[in-house]
Amino acid sequence: MKTILVLGAGLSASSLLRYLSERLISEDWLLKIGNSNIEPLRSKYSDNQRVHLIQLDASVAEERRAVIAHVDLVISMLPAKFHLEVARDCIDLRTDLITPSYVSPAMKQLHEEAVLKGVTILNETGVDPGIDHMSAMKIMDEKREEGATLKVFKSFCGGLIAPESDDNSWHYKFTWNPRNVIVAGQGGIAAFRQNKELKYIPYSQLFKRTERFIIDGYGSFDGYANRDSLKYIDIYNIDEVETIYRGTLRKPDFCQGWDVLIELGLTDDSYVLENSSLLSPRQLMNAFLPYHLVDSVEVKFKKFLRPERAHLFELFQEIGCFKGDVLLFQEDASPAVLLHALLEKAWVLKPTDKDMLVMLHEFEFEDAKGRTKITSSMVALGEDNVFTAMSNTVGIPIGIIAKLILNGYSNPGVHIPVQKEIYLPVLKELEEFGIKFTDTITEIN
Amino acid sequence: MKTILVLGAGLSASSLLRYLSERLISEDWLLKIGNSNIEPLRSKYSDNQRVHLIQLDASVAEERRAVIAHVDLVISMLPAKFHLEVARDCIDLRTDLITPSYVSPAMKQLHEEAVLKGVTILNETGVDPGIDHMSAMKIMDEKREEGATLKVFKSFCGGLIAPESDDNSWHYKFTWNPRNVIVAGQGGIAAFRQNKELKYIPYSQLFKRTERFIIDGYGSFDGYANRDSLKYIDIYNIDEVETIYRGTLRKPDFCQGWDVLIELGLTDDSYVLENSSLLSPRQLMNAFLPYHLVDSVEVKFKKFLRPERAHLFELFQEIGCFKGDVLLFQEDASPAVLLHALLEKAWVLKPTDKDMLVMLHEFEFEDAKGRTKITSSMVALGEDNVFTAMSNTVGIPIGIIAKLILNGYSNPGVHIPVQKEIYLPVLKELEEFGIKFTDTITEIN
Repeated sequence: MKTILVLGAGLSASSLLRYLSERLISEDWLLKIGNSNIEPLRSKYSDNQRVHLIQLDASVAEERRAVIAHVDLVISMLPAKFHLEVARDCIDLRTDLITPSYVSPAMKQLHEEAVLKGVTILNETGVDPGIDHMSAMKIMDEKREEGATLKVFKSFCGGLIAPESDDNSWHYKFTWNPRNVIVAGQGGIAAFRQNKELKYIPYSQLFKRTERFIIDGYGSFDGYANRDSLKYIDIYNIDEVETIYRGTLRKPDFCQGWDVLIELGLTDDSYVLENSSLLSPRQLMNAFLPYHLVDSVEVKFKKFLRPERAHLFELFQEIGCFKGDVLLFQEDASPAVLLHALLEKAWVLKPTDKDMLVMLHEFEFEDAKGRTKITSSMVALGEDNVFTAMSNTVGIPIGIIAKLILNGYSNPGVHIPVQKEIYLPVLKELEEFGIKFTDTITEIN
Repeated sequence: MKTILVLGAGLSASSLLRYLSERLISEDWLLKIGNSNIEPLRSKYSDNQRVHLIQLDASVAEERRAVIAHVDLVISMLPAKFHLEVARDCIDLRTDLITPSYVSPAMKQLHEEAVLKGVTILNETGVDPGIDHMSAMKIMDEKREEGATLKVFKSFCGGLIAPESDDNSWHYKFTWNPRNVIVAGQGGIAAFRQNKELKYIPYSQLFKRTERFIIDGYGSFDGYANRDSLKYIDIYNIDEVETIYRGTLRKPDFCQGWDVLIELGLTDDSYVLENSSLLSPRQLMNAFLPYHLVDSVEVKFKKFLRPERAHLFELFQEIGCFKGDVLLFQEDASPAVLLHALLEKAWVLKPTDKDMLVMLHEFEFEDAKGRTKITSSMVALGEDNVFTAMSNTVGIPIGIIAKLILNGYSNPGVHIPVQKEIYLPVLKELEEFGIKFTDTITEIN
């Protein structure tokens, strides 16, 4: 019997825990779940002899190590800041580790030690990062083996709302950490390569310079650039690529609307507004609009929009921007915190709402016969508000990778899932869960 | 005989040193000049028995304190970061201190100790901050004593180029620290009060939301908001004010042009560009313009400008934005550093150039008879490229304040020159140097 330890059992772990707990007998696993509060888990797991719930403060090294010492594999679903300490424990205790998070520079530095101790540490194993790497590498490796050269690689992902639950003009609700949406684009410059030219997009232009895509059955999407795409040239080993661009997908109007919020200054998190706890949404808007002696906030805002963006007005009315009779109640708050408070009410996921995860790759390959374009897309719909598309597409690949490792897969060091031995079985099994890519191939000359 | 120590004898100290050295005999002063390199000063001062040149590393406490211990007054013209340590020495050694720099929070905390030890520490004694405080307080105090209430206070300052040396389309050359111009507006949000409403202007709007002024004989100027104007409500004790706005003056077209540089992303100092040392200005521009298969950089830039700003094109051609045959040679540089390198060549002050310092206040006061508007403006022209307008307007008020202190003025604690006992004699004597305000009074209802 092999023992798996899942650290952190928050909302994002629901599909992973289901995947693992459904296979305890067939795979002969013991599942230990370590969480800061195990009470909510009791009703579900207390009758299951193969599940041990462990009350655990992951920030306390002794508590953590005492548990890790007696398991075969650790899956850390903790906030990303904890992964490094967990990885150090795992290397010391010679236990393999899976995390869904980006490889931090500090995590990367553990590579040699992990190799020496024979410990496999696989990061970026969820959806984005995760399924994006795996699905792109599959196509790139296949075409490379055929002798084709990669010329263009564009890759997009978006956590959105399912069409059946899409009932607002932004076509958006918070299906994941709202904070990340509010400050999206502020974490680093958007850099990419386009037809061999180096390109940068400053934050103030990010939601203006979007690209439109259509996915069969799901309509139009706008993609905006996502941080540093250049580093993926090394990660994917594709130095030959002439265009590389990674982005985030939203439904049309979202980006144009969000661009207005940026232009107003409402996404700024760098300073605190005077008397922020006493501001209504209307007063917040007014503080960022040029003064006018008689114009209402609505009229001033319409002037700010300018005629070419007039159709966006209802987006702002809908989220309650002009309400003067409610307060946002945020003490010592930045504009971003106040906007967060406003949107959290407007874009709440109802219990019956379903989410949608969309991934889209565009490749262009060149060989002796000419140029071929491959479009590869995946749309996953949530089952309900627990087993969301986000939770499924993050948790199921992690579960599959756990199974592979416990069945003998080993690759000592700090890695991401770009090896064929990992991505092929993961992508194959994901299809059983409806997480499946549809490819369109076009000869373009 | 009283002894004055001037710490730091860089370019900005030229007019101060002239003011002091011309009064050594009449005022019976000994002048000590402490600088990291005294060689350039020898030719000017070595014959003068009343001037002592002291080779001094201001960052070494013992060196500094050994000199401060034997003087009656210290004037720190060192970079602002040194002022705090100098102030601590002065308090310990019971020596008065003058600095031209903003009162830092740490400096403010020395107030009680300075009061206890009877030490006067006067900061913000140059032009902006300095003459702005003094000239505004004079009018505000006068009107307050007449029983009028301050309703509107707007105040602007600009370090510009004299009309006779103004030979470029931006009407601008670097007359002071270029770095401050490149990152202007990035040091904190622009906040102000307009007709009792709280207003904020984000960086991306800062150079769009300008206000036009005309100064007799000097034409039009555009003012853009300068950081937090709200804190001046307390500093000037004018809680009743309905509009308070502080800004920076530029000649028309400068702000519109600068706004384009911001929009492009060229003022960003938060990241490093790939291969920055190998970039020409043309490649730099191209990296921030959307890709086009056939358009030249100029055509792409014109599209970015849009027709309504097409007249600005020559501004960018003039500073060499489209030059592809020269490199900027900046290793690991941010866009701001590369822009700095580009502009330093384009906006260099020639030896024969003269600079210009412009200050403008607008007040509105209300009393039983109605509302009165007072416009008060000062234009100072540089004498040459040593005794610049900037150096004169910074150095001469400091010299005058030094004289006042050595003649008995005392106000223990950490202060700025908002007391009548200081600003009246300073403003009066400044007029002898042509630094003089012209007031226009209009009844507005």
